[in-house]
Amino acid sequence: MRTYLADEALLPEGWARDVAIDVDGAGAIVAVRTGAQAGAVEGAERLRGPVLPGLPNLHSHAFQRAMAGRTERRGPGGNDSFWTWREVMYRIAARFGPEDAEAVAAQLYVEMLKGGYTAVAEFHYLHHAPDGRPYADRAEMARRILAAARRVGIGITMLPSLYRHGGFGEAPPAEGQRRFLNDAEGVLHIVATVQADIAGGADARVGLAPHSLRAVSPALLADAVAGMRALDPEAPIHIHVAEQLREVEECLAATGRRPVARLLELAAPDARWCAIHATHMDAAETAALAASGAVAGLCPLTEANLGDGLFPFGAWRGGGGRWGIGSDSQVSASPRHELRQAEYAQRLHLRARTLVASEAQPSPGTTLLLEALDGGAQALGRPVGAIAPGRRADLLVLDAADPWLAGASGDTLADAFVFAGDANSVRDVMVGGRWVVRDGHHADERATATAYRASLARLFG
Amino acid sequence: MRTYLADEALLPEGWARDVAIDVDGAGAIVAVRTGAQAGAVEGAERLRGPVLPGLPNLHSHAFQRAMAGRTERRGPGGNDSFWTWREVMYRIAARFGPEDAEAVAAQLYVEMLKGGYTAVAEFHYLHHAPDGRPYADRAEMARRILAAARRVGIGITMLPSLYRHGGFGEAPPAEGQRRFLNDAEGVLHIVATVQADIAGGADARVGLAPHSLRAVSPALLADAVAGMRALDPEAPIHIHVAEQLREVEECLAATGRRPVARLLELAAPDARWCAIHATHMDAAETAALAASGAVAGLCPLTEANLGDGLFPFGAWRGGGGRWGIGSDSQVSASPRHELRQAEYAQRLHLRARTLVASEAQPSPGTTLLLEALDGGAQALGRPVGAIAPGRRADLLVLDAADPWLAGASGDTLADAFVFAGDANSVRDVMVGGRWVVRDGHHADERATATAYRASLARLFG
Repeated sequence: MRTYLADEALLPEGWARDVAIDVDGAGAIVAVRTGAQAGAVEGAERLRGPVLPGLPNLHSHAFQRAMAGRTERRGPGGNDSFWTWREVMYRIAARFGPEDAEAVAAQLYVEMLKGGYTAVAEFHYLHHAPDGRPYADRAEMARRILAAARRVGIGITMLPSLYRHGGFGEAPPAEGQRRFLNDAEGVLHIVATVQADIAGGADARVGLAPHSLRAVSPALLADAVAGMRALDPEAPIHIHVAEQLREVEECLAATGRRPVARLLELAAPDARWCAIHATHMDAAETAALAASGAVAGLCPLTEANLGDGLFPFGAWRGGGGRWGIGSDSQVSASPRHELRQAEYAQRLHLRARTLVASEAQPSPGTTLLLEALDGGAQALGRPVGAIAPGRRADLLVLDAADPWLAGASGDTLADAFVFAGDANSVRDVMVGGRWVVRDGHHADERATATAYRASLARLFG
Repeated sequence: MRTYLADEALLPEGWARDVAIDVDGAGAIVAVRTGAQAGAVEGAERLRGPVLPGLPNLHSHAFQRAMAGRTERRGPGGNDSFWTWREVMYRIAARFGPEDAEAVAAQLYVEMLKGGYTAVAEFHYLHHAPDGRPYADRAEMARRILAAARRVGIGITMLPSLYRHGGFGEAPPAEGQRRFLNDAEGVLHIVATVQADIAGGADARVGLAPHSLRAVSPALLADAVAGMRALDPEAPIHIHVAEQLREVEECLAATGRRPVARLLELAAPDARWCAIHATHMDAAETAALAASGAVAGLCPLTEANLGDGLFPFGAWRGGGGRWGIGSDSQVSASPRHELRQAEYAQRLHLRARTLVASEAQPSPGTTLLLEALDGGAQALGRPVGAIAPGRRADLLVLDAADPWLAGASGDTLADAFVFAGDANSVRDVMVGGRWVVRDGHHADERATATAYRASLARLFG
């Protein structure tokens, strides 16, 4: 057992001073005390700045890191949208081999750790070889991504994705989707394989990701969820829903229901579910999904980059809805920039400030952090996201020397971290009791970047 | 004379390869050649990455850097807005002495240089002592800020602000505004003093900033502009206009005109003018102001932070309107994050992508950079913002080793720089032919940060 001392730390109930955190040999927090005096704990390690829990990233497609910045070009028709972006994404996805998947994920996960994400939910749909045939090991690509996560030391919830159809009404898949396709048996085989790989590991978990209501028929959704529940009754289940207006229109046309209403009707989501995006909901959908206990998987910078639209944040939170943040298309690996964007989009729309704060908790920075930590941990299905007994020792030590944080503490520090400055103010990062970033550097960052560049040269060279 | 060689550089007509840039001893670019071979230029210095012109920052209130992150708290009434933010700003402004003004500006300007801004327009209204009396030297505070800019090596357009009234109809100023107040004679004295200080300096200029139509009556605006024109007929004139809906309502009530319509009527702005924010314009105002040649001074991250509202970017650009970016309240010192936010706000609102790109220039990154460079230079009234003969040698060398830019060049590089990644990808920065940042570090950054922290301790300790 080891004890860490923080001058100040963000606990579930708010900021506290002189915090002692006891961590066992397996990387779990066993006790947290406040008001601890430096000399009082023999052999304790003093943390070198204010401490936050590591942020959970609840939605990642790792391979898209290689596309960041490469999908911005205006097409010949001039009608650029999510759907033209998706065509570019399919063309790039077609080139990835297993080695690329691992190299790109490792680079991304190093960047996430340095930015302050200590755990990620990998919504993994790039399963098969470029010709659409499964690799000899059907879980090859999932295992490569898992290997990257283990190697660089980020916690992971692997969510093999079930993708079967090209659109509502069991439309045939498009050419660009053939690497993604599975039936329930196929995806559950991947789930079971990864489950066996991680057996006993405290920093990984497996769940299921039915891709979307377009890509999975009602019967298939029911089969796959039942199969997942048989393997792990509490496993997280993530699904893309209501990201784009066209999807709303197509769902209405095909089923007579809007996507979130349809999801509620088909799957009765509960606290084990995460609805990714859920951007376009009417008031009844918002209230019902929030009340279900499912987490809304917000991806603020990706949703801005793709022009998805505005999530009903106020109504969602007003209805008790839980939420977290995901990096999705990987245009950013910084939780503070995601949180900032989540609030800025609302401020611009509603022409008001400090929207998430309340009289009980007047700091929007602290509020955003605590809610994203809590919802993110729930979505990952792992005991993370809080400095509390029973949770993993996933900790961020902020850089007290960063002038953007100078002189700030407690709620003001949280506000500065979320709303001011550009650079990375994270100094040290611990995952499961192990230091993975020290002084802003990851031990493997050079090797990882070299392998990443080699993959980019293969993919685009 | 010195010659610099870039493998690739952004020129006014777009990206070019093997660019030789000749810079004279006074820091001006005298010639630019493309297709230059490395060996062909004896004694030339090879730049260590792709090269952009330094970005002009057209709107800064330097002292507000000390407030970044400290204004986010929800007030007791729960009705947080620009106007409650302004009360907090007044309280903090009241504490600044000349030494603080210089220390905070120096820290901010170092951060701007490291982020890629090589010139700033300082909209300076914190003129007098806390009790409202002018300092013995009426230009004391302006000179402190100018000293900071010179010391750290950023180009500056000093815009002493004229602030007289507390609202439309010559309402009396509030207590919190007393340090800002001048009459035309007072502000022109500051202008003339700074003009004398910088005489012959190529990296500084002086203009005038009538604060807003609320703070300056029509007669005073006419007097001050005439006085400025007598001192320098081509000097830039900046004014805050139409940032907030309440301002629109008050202007309508007092004058029967919306703020931009009123500005057009009173001042007939032209290419020497910069309308800061100009957020709330109707279609006729947008068309008329765009056609006037005035620059729109967008401050995307501040406008998001303050919940100002959405600038009519499409109509503005469609009408030939020129624009640039400003860091305003200093929640960011990064031009790439400002440009990103300018486009993301539009993408979320219009639910489409690559909005500023065109068939002629399909890269939104290149388009945003070139337009912000051009409009920013115009607003600063200085020959900056382009790698072209006659312009200042203000150059950014990007970090080719940054994985976020890996393998990208030309338009793709511009897209990646603007739309992907979080960290600072600027490696070396030159202002007026002099290196001020090397390998991401400014020579004075430690001393500057130490003085900044000492000021913060005085201001908030």
